[in-house]
Amino acid sequence: MADDGSGVSHVRIRLDVGYDGTDFVGWAAQPGQRTVAGTLHDVLDRILGGVSGLTVAGRTDAGVHATGQVCHVDARADRWAAIEATAVHRLAGLLPADVRVYATSVVPPSFDARFAALYRRYAYRISDSGWGSPVLRHRDTLAWPRPLSLERLNEAAAALLGEHDFAAFCRRKEHATTIRAISELSWRRDPDGIVVATVQADAFCQAMVRSLVGALLPVGDGRKAVDWPGAMLTRTVRASEIVVAPPHGLTLVEVGYPADAAQYAARAERTRNLRKRT
Amino acid sequence: MADDGSGVSHVRIRLDVGYDGTDFVGWAAQPGQRTVAGTLHDVLDRILGGVSGLTVAGRTDAGVHATGQVCHVDARADRWAAIEATAVHRLAGLLPADVRVYATSVVPPSFDARFAALYRRYAYRISDSGWGSPVLRHRDTLAWPRPLSLERLNEAAAALLGEHDFAAFCRRKEHATTIRAISELSWRRDPDGIVVATVQADAFCQAMVRSLVGALLPVGDGRKAVDWPGAMLTRTVRASEIVVAPPHGLTLVEVGYPADAAQYAARAERTRNLRKRT
Repeated sequence: MADDGSGVSHVRIRLDVGYDGTDFVGWAAQPGQRTVAGTLHDVLDRILGGVSGLTVAGRTDAGVHATGQVCHVDARADRWAAIEATAVHRLAGLLPADVRVYATSVVPPSFDARFAALYRRYAYRISDSGWGSPVLRHRDTLAWPRPLSLERLNEAAAALLGEHDFAAFCRRKEHATTIRAISELSWRRDPDGIVVATVQADAFCQAMVRSLVGALLPVGDGRKAVDWPGAMLTRTVRASEIVVAPPHGLTLVEVGYPADAAQYAARAERTRNLRKRT
Repeated sequence: MADDGSGVSHVRIRLDVGYDGTDFVGWAAQPGQRTVAGTLHDVLDRILGGVSGLTVAGRTDAGVHATGQVCHVDARADRWAAIEATAVHRLAGLLPADVRVYATSVVPPSFDARFAALYRRYAYRISDSGWGSPVLRHRDTLAWPRPLSLERLNEAAAALLGEHDFAAFCRRKEHATTIRAISELSWRRDPDGIVVATVQADAFCQAMVRSLVGALLPVGDGRKAVDWPGAMLTRTVRASEIVVAPPHGLTLVEVGYPADAAQYAARAERTRNLRKRT
């Protein structure tokens, strides 16, 4: 709980959120557009009489989904106390079916959904069935026209693990580093035949996961050599040969934070410094 | 292969089909409306230069989905022969993402997708999480506001098993029997928390599965007695107390046929006679 100087106490609230990104133009609020942040902010405003500082762990692009998104927002402590017990039910009733809030919790002011995050974890779903994507998952599964080899996908992916300059896989942004540490990049085939890539890193630059998937798919279907994606790590600018995979196959599935709340501030400080590296 | 008298040989083709029913007004073709049959017929017409007699195992209502639908259609044998090997790929490219054809096969003229079927199997998905339906399955999962007891659901369901007059659960249709044989009606909770009803019968009358689910849900959440749905079997007309569950939770998952093609005709004959019972 914090006092903003006006004598009114405020609390920081963590929200665990999911959304079907199909009918949104992305996370970030844009006037006149249907965005996840805009939709969520409107409803939170309505039940809390004003919220501020809605901040998200992963600003997903248009069409990208989330089942494990995390955000925070600040609200008046008295108003939060009045609805806390019923907040999830109220939000379920007021939000459209394509945005859900699974849980809410009061967190210390040092919790920052974006900067205190230790890692983000994404899944990318692909159907190489020949007949296309499963009808009840066509909104979050890419249809790939050629059969994929898990062995080739995983062999190529292994070269991208660890800390590298992912400039070839990133949209250029001034004064921002493109060095990232990928702790997992693996492919599996689920019992229903769907091929799923799991990618975890401290953070990602824009469209990076979709570029990684886009670089690996032509290896998986045999059109590119297994060592081709790894060779891209020597580039210092975006590689135009890498086709960015479509957004709808991608879902943010988890964001990790320090287990000990006392470490939120230190983690946020470290993240801010790292991002400034050029 | 059959000759229709014009000297042109025709073949009957079985299509294994799935669809996301959300954006369709149902299976049956209706002028000016987006229907599954209309969409499928247009594309088959285009690649086969004319098809006739598109017949489906289960005429699903608006908003109901299918992952295991079966239909048949008749086409010129020469035209089918020319595209048979690539039919699934062609259909995948021409159909919208919410209709898929998994497989095609030539069947004897005695195969009738509707009348030769031995059983239909449906699944109904419900989330009683409190926060609503999973964001990536909100189109095929009903959000139920109260916790459901599997024990109560299964106890009540057991009374509906077997052959009964399901008049209470059926929309009235002149000169048509409402006697049906339910061979399975069971509830489970999946690892992801979703409650799933599985219902299998020789056939169903219109909205019957949704009426069965609609009668069981208020038992599952404790508002009705466990013996209430079974007591409805004594009714001879539709019971207005039974709320028909919304269509979007329902999916046709399987249609069964005799293993031996020689039995198609006998099964179809038997079905036609049974349906005439009043």
